Amino acid sequence: MSAFPSYPLIDPSDPVFRAHEGGKLGVHSTQPLRDRADLALLYTPGVADVSRAIALDPSLAARYTARANTVAVVTDGTAVLGLGDIGPLAAMPVMEGKAVLFKHFGGVDAVPVCMESGTVEELVDAIARIAPTYGGINLEDISAPRCFEIERRLQERLDIPVFHDDQHGTAVVVLAGLLNAATVVRRPLESLRVVVSGAGAAGVAVTKLLARAGVADIVVCDSRGIVSPGRDDLADHKRRLAATTNPRGLAGSLSDALACADVFVGVSGGQVPEADVARMAPDAIIFALANPTPEVHPEVAARYAAVVATGRSDFPNQINNVLAFPGIFRGALDSGAGQVTEPMKIAAAQAIARLVEHPTADEIVPSVFAPGVADAVAEAVSALA
Amino acid sequence: MSAFPSYPLIDPSDPVFRAHEGGKLGVHSTQPLRDRADLALLYTPGVADVSRAIALDPSLAARYTARANTVAVVTDGTAVLGLGDIGPLAAMPVMEGKAVLFKHFGGVDAVPVCMESGTVEELVDAIARIAPTYGGINLEDISAPRCFEIERRLQERLDIPVFHDDQHGTAVVVLAGLLNAATVVRRPLESLRVVVSGAGAAGVAVTKLLARAGVADIVVCDSRGIVSPGRDDLADHKRRLAATTNPRGLAGSLSDALACADVFVGVSGGQVPEADVARMAPDAIIFALANPTPEVHPEVAARYAAVVATGRSDFPNQINNVLAFPGIFRGALDSGAGQVTEPMKIAAAQAIARLVEHPTADEIVPSVFAPGVADAVAEAVSALA
Repeated sequence: MSAFPSYPLIDPSDPVFRAHEGGKLGVHSTQPLRDRADLALLYTPGVADVSRAIALDPSLAARYTARANTVAVVTDGTAVLGLGDIGPLAAMPVMEGKAVLFKHFGGVDAVPVCMESGTVEELVDAIARIAPTYGGINLEDISAPRCFEIERRLQERLDIPVFHDDQHGTAVVVLAGLLNAATVVRRPLESLRVVVSGAGAAGVAVTKLLARAGVADIVVCDSRGIVSPGRDDLADHKRRLAATTNPRGLAGSLSDALACADVFVGVSGGQVPEADVARMAPDAIIFALANPTPEVHPEVAARYAAVVATGRSDFPNQINNVLAFPGIFRGALDSGAGQVTEPMKIAAAQAIARLVEHPTADEIVPSVFAPGVADAVAEAVSALA
Repeated sequence: MSAFPSYPLIDPSDPVFRAHEGGKLGVHSTQPLRDRADLALLYTPGVADVSRAIALDPSLAARYTARANTVAVVTDGTAVLGLGDIGPLAAMPVMEGKAVLFKHFGGVDAVPVCMESGTVEELVDAIARIAPTYGGINLEDISAPRCFEIERRLQERLDIPVFHDDQHGTAVVVLAGLLNAATVVRRPLESLRVVVSGAGAAGVAVTKLLARAGVADIVVCDSRGIVSPGRDDLADHKRRLAATTNPRGLAGSLSDALACADVFVGVSGGQVPEADVARMAPDAIIFALANPTPEVHPEVAARYAAVVATGRSDFPNQINNVLAFPGIFRGALDSGAGQVTEPMKIAAAQAIARLVEHPTADEIVPSVFAPGVADAVAEAVSALA
């Protein structure tokens, strides 16, 4: 099997398919059920005492139900990985995988919720209706721009964290990497000229979080070029981006944006010609995060940049959301936080960055298997709850 | 702790509360996650192959996701145990307990889904929207008569089993018990005069299933007496009952119905005076299933009846849904059945009854811990899929 196959494999003997046989998740009881006495404790009649107590004091649900450690990984399957709108059934393996990561790295019990798609209103209503079951909602692989409104409305309605990982998980790890990359090139974050390629879920969230963290000069590009107020083809979320970014008032193509830019953050899936990369400033930082094919091949990027990162595990500096989301939810659940705020995201990014004691061009973020990542992130998030 | 406490206990040192600390359910990965190679199999990039394959052929979801072994235990918390409308949060411990039983007895991975209540339409829409995640839907503790329409509409919309356990699980185990009780009193099932006390979820389903199994003379009573066409206070589901039961055209009270009746099935929660019990025919069969307080105390019932059953574990003949639902879903999932049909329910009841080799007055159903119950039920259900 190639590391990044680009065509369907339906070969039951393939290691990937063998690993998926019967699914990747199971549910278990945390309590022994050996006899009638256990049954009377875990089910009727004993359970009635617990239900009655929670009915009288709903805050007891946090202590006496699984809710406080359970997160729903919710998708409608409209923007799955690089595969697009493949629907809720085909999204299941990804959501199960995410749940495996939640448990392994964060000790969080996560369950997939794969929904038939519908209007924003319909999805929000359905998710809000089932929300009492969970201590948090991880939105996943929901297409832009619907994902922004779905998340915002749910955050308004619910008192548990609602976190669209494609947006914020990505943004946190990009910021973590950029903090250390800036150290490597000895530049204050605030001084960097950043180009974000991609104005979807990840691009919007990366832009917002970098701005919040102090980056003053961000230019966002979509497939038609620089997102600027002069364009008449912009959807609402891009109009808002145009109004809050691009302080030098650039117009034109991604190539124009890259002239003398210090940082390229690619979350677009497009390809950037080598000639455009060559236009960047000296000591450039390139995060080419498209998967499986980075916007700039890391070997090409290395010809022009001082620091190169990708989303891939087979090159240095893998910018992977798993560095963030298990610890962010762990911290939010442990502290009873009702939301994941911008300061929490920045604190999470700083915590991840700090785990690399001496950042170098080849190590700006910890390995996903480095011990203590989720704990450090959880602690940083909890401290702000 | 008394076996059936009737007031809230919020004593953290109580064994019931200790058993519920942190909830009763956990989620685990069925596959090892040790290193980058495992990560590439279980998550990106490997998982994309599986998602792509399912997008091309949705039937592969049954093989390569957890869906085929996962059942949602869905409630809106409007009719929880004997506690009534206590809401979704307070229902969580019961749904978790149910999930524990699903796994222990049927090997089924069940997850609670506790929903904010709403109109029938709203609940049906929300449940149908999340249904792609699951191989079956177990409806639980939803108040009557809404439960009937919610179940019917979901069955029409979905191609997976939708099974309201308060109705059908109860009906299956009552039928199982009655099959063996009839043997004990040497009476054909068809000849029995049956009184069902309670015209809610359980009463309706018990009546339908007994009729389907051949019982010709069933009289249903609600809190106002015999459900008969002459009454002008009947909700729709009771009007339908009135039209299809009560072949001798009785009117009056439960006391009138019990005169010369062979069988009493209590699923009402009310109390039956001893004088009324005394009016039943010789060799009567009494199933007083209200929990925690049976309609007739079993010691009183035994003065007049040849066979007595309750819902309690501290008397012989416990009519407990756990004899039915784990095996029914196990069988439906294993066979890919799109619904649980009436013949399947009857076959399940017969399978449970057959597990008692020599029925006696004190043993008409197997113990819930008897080995092989769920397997036998699953086999009977699968055979009809």
